[in-house]
Amino acid sequence: MTTTAPESVLALDPATQDLLFREARTANAFTGEPVTDDQVRAIYDLVKWGPTAMNTQPLRLVAVRTPQARERLVAHMAEGNKAKTGSAPLALIVAADADFHEHLPVTFPHKPGARESMADNPGRPGIAHFNATIQLGYLIVGIRAAGLAAGPMVGFDAEGLRREFLSGTNQQPIAVVNVGRPGPDAWFERNPRLSFEQVVTTV
Amino acid sequence: MTTTAPESVLALDPATQDLLFREARTANAFTGEPVTDDQVRAIYDLVKWGPTAMNTQPLRLVAVRTPQARERLVAHMAEGNKAKTGSAPLALIVAADADFHEHLPVTFPHKPGARESMADNPGRPGIAHFNATIQLGYLIVGIRAAGLAAGPMVGFDAEGLRREFLSGTNQQPIAVVNVGRPGPDAWFERNPRLSFEQVVTTV
Repeated sequence: MTTTAPESVLALDPATQDLLFREARTANAFTGEPVTDDQVRAIYDLVKWGPTAMNTQPLRLVAVRTPQARERLVAHMAEGNKAKTGSAPLALIVAADADFHEHLPVTFPHKPGARESMADNPGRPGIAHFNATIQLGYLIVGIRAAGLAAGPMVGFDAEGLRREFLSGTNQQPIAVVNVGRPGPDAWFERNPRLSFEQVVTTV
Repeated sequence: MTTTAPESVLALDPATQDLLFREARTANAFTGEPVTDDQVRAIYDLVKWGPTAMNTQPLRLVAVRTPQARERLVAHMAEGNKAKTGSAPLALIVAADADFHEHLPVTFPHKPGARESMADNPGRPGIAHFNATIQLGYLIVGIRAAGLAAGPMVGFDAEGLRREFLSGTNQQPIAVVNVGRPGPDAWFERNPRLSFEQVVTTV
């Protein structure tokens, strides 16, 4: 039986719960207010601390800012995502870097040979995809922590996007996230969430 | 050039930045203080609001609490994870439910037929895995929002864990997360993070 209001069980104050989760929404329209390089840097410098397996940190971002780059991005977005991606002040291409192991001598120094054994691991792209996706969760929270709205999307031509922006790397795009201040009619009616009982079993 | 301290660019106050990201650490040892059902419910009721594609919400959790269930869990953990999983006051088996589409008539009501078209989609397990992994990122942040430490692990026998705890479902385990108050020597020295310049390209 729950006897305490859920908000008060948390260490996080209610206003911040609203900022990050309860009132935050996926925005589909944005004002013209720019997202600055300082904001992008502050978001990354916060969410980089979120944990990944073996400290792999495979997340990579392409911040799409110029009109020319925007046009190249929109060309690869699904029809229903073109208008909002074209109007967001900033779009982030979120990618998973299968060559994350090159950094292991620095990022996981207490296991010598980690780079070499990972270089031969056929599961490396899957490890990159899984851990970059956890980091995508942190990133969405971090964008909201900057007081901005995030609009994550998976509707795009991944191979086209890879060729256009990530050629010469071992990175695969996993999402595109629009970032900005929500504009008029930025969101649809909020969809229901599954209840605790539908999601959590206790044994 | 960055001219403003990154912390002050964010809407999130610095103490909360520390609570959720900067000072939060992956715990490897825990005190005996229990994690209550109210806390688990409050964490879920916060992180359920994080966005997923088509509001699919494929995350499922098994909260492992009793000594008997703990023993069954530890048997499937990798050698290096057995001691900490055995000593954490609570462990959460995090799974991705490939049958998430059964909920779409409620969770994504404005697209009639979404359940039926997703039922025939061979990519459904991958969609479940991807979106549950984003939700795993939210969950780790949510555990910290409750003032608790999270210890996420991927070292376990996934098929054994599935048979032991998830038989009769279409769920696949993606992680096990220990939850509790950090105990003595709860963490190793913090490993370095990649710099903004190593991760973000602006175009």
